[in-house]
Amino acid sequence: MEITVSRKAHFNAAHRLHVAGWSEEKNKAFFGHCNNPNFHGHNYDLTVTVTGQLDEETGYLIDTKELKDLIKREVEDRFDHKNLNLDTEEFKQLNPTAENIAIVIWRLLRPHIDQSIKLKITLYETERNFVEYTGN
Amino acid sequence: MEITVSRKAHFNAAHRLHVAGWSEEKNKAFFGHCNNPNFHGHNYDLTVTVTGQLDEETGYLIDTKELKDLIKREVEDRFDHKNLNLDTEEFKQLNPTAENIAIVIWRLLRPHIDQSIKLKITLYETERNFVEYTGN
Amino acid sequence: MEITVSRKAHFNAAHRLHVAGWSEEKNKAFFGHCNNPNFHGHNYDLTVTVTGQLDEETGYLIDTKELKDLIKREVEDRFDHKNLNLDTEEFKQLNPTAENIAIVIWRLLRPHIDQSIKLKITLYETERNFVEYTGN
Amino acid sequence: MEITVSRKAHFNAAHRLHVAGWSEEKNKAFFGHCNNPNFHGHNYDLTVTVTGQLDEETGYLIDTKELKDLIKREVEDRFDHKNLNLDTEEFKQLNPTAENIAIVIWRLLRPHIDQSIKLKITLYETERNFVEYTGN
Amino acid sequence: MEITVSRKAHFNAAHRLHVAGWSEEKNKAFFGHCNNPNFHGHNYDLTVTVTGQLDEETGYLIDTKELKDLIKREVEDRFDHKNLNLDTEEFKQLNPTAENIAIVIWRLLRPHIDQSIKLKITLYETERNFVEYTGN
Amino acid sequence: MEITVSRKAHFNAAHRLHVAGWSEEKNKAFFGHCNNPNFHGHNYDLTVTVTGQLDEETGYLIDTKELKDLIKREVEDRFDHKNLNLDTEEFKQLNPTAENIAIVIWRLLRPHIDQSIKLKITLYETERNFVEYTGN
Repeated sequence: MEITVSRKAHFNAAHRLHVAGWSEEKNKAFFGHCNNPNFHGHNYDLTVTVTGQLDEETGYLIDTKELKDLIKREVEDRFDHKNLNLDTEEFKQLNPTAENIAIVIWRLLRPHIDQSIKLKITLYETERNFVEYTGN
Repeated sequence: MEITVSRKAHFNAAHRLHVAGWSEEKNKAFFGHCNNPNFHGHNYDLTVTVTGQLDEETGYLIDTKELKDLIKREVEDRFDHKNLNLDTEEFKQLNPTAENIAIVIWRLLRPHIDQSIKLKITLYETERNFVEYTGN
Repeated sequence: MEITVSRKAHFNAAHRLHVAGWSEEKNKAFFGHCNNPNFHGHNYDLTVTVTGQLDEETGYLIDTKELKDLIKREVEDRFDHKNLNLDTEEFKQLNPTAENIAIVIWRLLRPHIDQSIKLKITLYETERNFVEYTGN
Repeated sequence: MEITVSRKAHFNAAHRLHVAGWSEEKNKAFFGHCNNPNFHGHNYDLTVTVTGQLDEETGYLIDTKELKDLIKREVEDRFDHKNLNLDTEEFKQLNPTAENIAIVIWRLLRPHIDQSIKLKITLYETERNFVEYTGN
Repeated sequence: MEITVSRKAHFNAAHRLHVAGWSEEKNKAFFGHCNNPNFHGHNYDLTVTVTGQLDEETGYLIDTKELKDLIKREVEDRFDHKNLNLDTEEFKQLNPTAENIAIVIWRLLRPHIDQSIKLKITLYETERNFVEYTGN
Repeated sequence: MEITVSRKAHFNAAHRLHVAGWSEEKNKAFFGHCNNPNFHGHNYDLTVTVTGQLDEETGYLIDTKELKDLIKREVEDRFDHKNLNLDTEEFKQLNPTAENIAIVIWRLLRPHIDQSIKLKITLYETERNFVEYTGN
């Protein structure tokens, strides 16, 4: 029996949308107020979703306590109350769009979850904008 | 890398569920209080979801500002504060069920989004009822 | 010990903002698209809040089951899936603004609640607009 | 035209995570405070999702009033204000994890929904944990 | 400058509404399915609200980190994943209605908050029912 | 008849908690990770609440369209997608705690609202932390 389990988490961060190889003018024209050189910020709402075979003995797919701890260690401790552009290795060069943040989180979690289990990341940047990434 | 991006929007409208070719009795029996000839109404919550290849230069799938403007122009300006049955071309003949409203919105947006990008509509009619349409 | 208890409820309705004694032009200029003669509609979220002395024997202020039934009988059965302007006695003459709907609901419930208990109505017209009325 | 319709519902219940064949020590070590022998409880938020061909005459996939009544009869009346371990046949032997509750609800509803229609269950155990089951 | 600061928290628990001095019949007739002898349960959402003078040097009323830790120590550690009737001293005799739980939480927190600061407890038992207590 | 009307709005911003006259060590010890010199950020959810006498001719306390425009002009245009510490006059010296942001918003709006009308600001910094200010 294939089952899907999701766990929500949360972090706050500052960021600036900016393509390293572009001129200031091109960046400003393309990203608008999201390119503010002094940064702005968000409360990011994260849902980590795993899909795999139910363990029929325990009735669990995965221990959500372990999933919660994994998210804390790999995502919240790394990004919470940080400036994504300045304080993190992941976004020193990479533009911290919601799309890229979701992809980075997927890559951070993937090695720590059994390969038989599918992984999906949903990331809300605001109440009205969100992205999903499945690694496909 | 395939990524999914969603944008939420909102409109308020009056409607009445009614099949044009049916008698008043059959309509009332089938649709109950949703068939009220004087109309009732809803706050419709809309999520527009697009899926396609990430532009690795910008870190965007699509500019969500452009998506927001497209939704405003094609959906909100057309349906917000309107009587769907009386004020819109789309529902002059078509019964404005949540299912049909979602399909109509999909058809209104589809021509304006690149054909390489998949489109999905989610429409909440109330907090407890919602529909999804992908064009398949 | 004074305690406050709230119960949420919900109804959907069509309405049109319109002052009976004004010209069509004045109504349209003042109320804008809310004056649409064909009506628009909302999902109204209602919170009924009562404040009084705790019954120390039962640990209740009021039986919320009875409060739920009262709201159903006096508010939901009266307004749900209705056109407020056309289908209800209360708004035949009275402009169905969120303010007036909250006041009408307060007056409908007040006679059925013990006079030692204070009553407050909170009414969400949309997710972003809401009103409160306490009878003062 | 394939369309998806969802209906939300709600029930409150007590439960205890416990594998019948394990020792008390093993159960406590594995399930932690969820194994409390005196039980704890949750407000379970349920979404029932059905996918199938639109009936183009009515504009419905399914009558959501009938779906609401089915959920009440098969799920809410059975589990609401109950102790899942003690008061229900379904979880006398089966560990009432969120995963197993979702699977049980899927099996309770499946016989009552036309076989041409796909069924998916989403169950929130808390605001931060939820599971999905599609019968695959 | 008087300012109000609120912090939300959460706990899950089982309970049974039951007045110790009443017969089984009277309890069942009065509390209905909330009197289930095998218990049911809830996800309780708690908001702790404090009001007092702003510290103009720091721009804080109170350190919300300290408030969060206080709520964890006095409320969450005491009630989370517990059976309120069986596992806690506070509700061995006292009927665990939402009203009484809010009053008990107020009394647990009051000694740990400066007397110049007012304290209010808001407790959601379900999404649709909540209570407030201010100690007056 | 006294009535209360609320309007919600939203802005995203970066900030850093920091008292200008304190040493770096004292700031870091007191504000912890909120003192990050590279800033972090939030989605701020704002509710502006006005209380006054109903205009019985229109059924309005205030035109919420005008209130929405006022909030956009005085708050959203000023703070949205900004670094509060670096980009705004208001927080050049003042520590941008949630408390101080609420007080500043109250002072920005107060001159533009009739003096017979009471004004209250509610500001959510995260889903779990919020402040209220009434000018008293």
